[in-house]
Amino acid sequence: MRKITIAVDAMGGDNAPGEICKGAILACEEFEDIEIALTGDENKIKSCLAKKNNSRINIINTTEIISMDEHPANAIRKKKNSSLRVAMEMVRSGEAQGCVSAGNTGAIVAGGVLIVGRLPEIDRPALGVVIPSVLKPSFMLDVGATVRCKPENLLQFASMGNIYARKILKIENPEIKLLSNGTEEIKGDEATMSARELIEAKSNLNFKGYIEGNDVVWGKSDIIICDGFNGNITLKLGEGIMQCLKNLLYDEVKKSFMTKAGMLLLAPVVKRLWARFNYEKYGGTPLLGVKGAVIKAHGRSKAPAVKSAISAARKFIEENGPDLISNEI
Amino acid sequence: MRKITIAVDAMGGDNAPGEICKGAILACEEFEDIEIALTGDENKIKSCLAKKNNSRINIINTTEIISMDEHPANAIRKKKNSSLRVAMEMVRSGEAQGCVSAGNTGAIVAGGVLIVGRLPEIDRPALGVVIPSVLKPSFMLDVGATVRCKPENLLQFASMGNIYARKILKIENPEIKLLSNGTEEIKGDEATMSARELIEAKSNLNFKGYIEGNDVVWGKSDIIICDGFNGNITLKLGEGIMQCLKNLLYDEVKKSFMTKAGMLLLAPVVKRLWARFNYEKYGGTPLLGVKGAVIKAHGRSKAPAVKSAISAARKFIEENGPDLISNEI
Repeated sequence: MRKITIAVDAMGGDNAPGEICKGAILACEEFEDIEIALTGDENKIKSCLAKKNNSRINIINTTEIISMDEHPANAIRKKKNSSLRVAMEMVRSGEAQGCVSAGNTGAIVAGGVLIVGRLPEIDRPALGVVIPSVLKPSFMLDVGATVRCKPENLLQFASMGNIYARKILKIENPEIKLLSNGTEEIKGDEATMSARELIEAKSNLNFKGYIEGNDVVWGKSDIIICDGFNGNITLKLGEGIMQCLKNLLYDEVKKSFMTKAGMLLLAPVVKRLWARFNYEKYGGTPLLGVKGAVIKAHGRSKAPAVKSAISAARKFIEENGPDLISNEI
Repeated sequence: MRKITIAVDAMGGDNAPGEICKGAILACEEFEDIEIALTGDENKIKSCLAKKNNSRINIINTTEIISMDEHPANAIRKKKNSSLRVAMEMVRSGEAQGCVSAGNTGAIVAGGVLIVGRLPEIDRPALGVVIPSVLKPSFMLDVGATVRCKPENLLQFASMGNIYARKILKIENPEIKLLSNGTEEIKGDEATMSARELIEAKSNLNFKGYIEGNDVVWGKSDIIICDGFNGNITLKLGEGIMQCLKNLLYDEVKKSFMTKAGMLLLAPVVKRLWARFNYEKYGGTPLLGVKGAVIKAHGRSKAPAVKSAISAARKFIEENGPDLISNEI
């Protein structure tokens, strides 16, 4: 059995290090072929692992932490002994084949480029995310790694998304659409229109034109391509709306006995609805275009989400994701 | 009493001409200072108005219709006797001071520029929309008139939004934010970053920096500025999510007697929630930057929404909206 080592940033995210350590334990219990290197404050990690320690979990002591609001590139450059940077150094040196962090997204992107390194064939990296939708989940990229893209970048995102969807998400011949302000050919800004032509010309991509905002949530495409500026706004808006409706609903329900009773009867429905839009099961956000499996877990991740992200890193490594991307381009 | 004439495109929108005519009647009943010119198929309009005809409603017979999927600029140029173009010609000639249509948005924007005409001080027009949010409604522009914007365009949108919010929405000293991929100063693409500097330098604008996607729905700004590409995607995504949740909820509820009973008890809550996000009460989407009050009503508008759009046109005319914008820039 080939051994896979995944470096996990134990100090990144809202629930670090407790839930990160728990997630690492869960992952080791599920996958016998992985070893995990937890980077972070050794004492804290030890007390989190407690008696549940697994012989395949190693601790790499680090002394610095990159916080959520630090300048990403500066933090990665200066904090040489931070849990995130050390995890990424392990990927660069080959000690690990992949890394997972629920920390500062910008720092993960910056570290992916500066520490792990870009694949020579890829000009700009992309963060891809599986967005829960009605008909089927969609894989959307970029959601924030490359803020403004040239048409060539969007083409590369389409190729990378195609590989990720086929190999990791196991979607056969995935449909690819480009996010735009309408479905007609005359729509789109200049970069989007040029990207459309470039992607259309690639015969190995199953390209189906534009998708507009209202169809995103219905899952009307396996892969959705956009630049990091739009992707970030779209993703956050979706999260914001869901969170907002949840809060409003519970506030309103509390107001009377009748509505509380109604909510009780409706509980299974509401549970099913939220479960459908639960990011935890979708296993993290890959940073595509770098020399290794770099997976960003949601900042609010609890143990099951951390385990999912580790599982995504494992799959990506098993499938030789970075090599596949290099060969495809 | 000053008489205001508003041309209304009776043939535009999913529910034309029936609901458009009903909306015109409602508006005339509410506002005694307006006259309405309904442009469209005279016979159809007459049968819609039936006995409810109001002496302040005139019919202007037209023979062509611009459909929802026509190329906007071509349609406006070629269909000289279309209900939309004739309504806009009335604004250009001064027979009307404003017009309302629930038809093809692109054609309304194209007609606003080509027929009604841009204000000389404004380089590109903007469609503004009041988006229902939790804390307070926000006025967002542009949501689709100018697909890709220069920083100077975004600055003009901020000034136009400021006037509309103050004069029409009656918000004192409205807060203005720029839609971006994060709230920190380092965020934003090039155009957004430059626009930030330009808007910041205008001392008459109450500018508060960036707003990110998840805060849009909370109403964390009175005015939200973005380009038409992003604005269109954001607006449609929001609509799509709401529609999708509504459908999923009703599908799930139908499945058992218990959940149906629960839904019955929760009905007032759900009604209040949807009412909060109901576009009908917000009265149409102004096309700002043109020489008249051009208001786009939602394509699915029924009579109350049409009345709201006519009311918005009336207010904009009463306040001399276009002059205010010219003077401000």
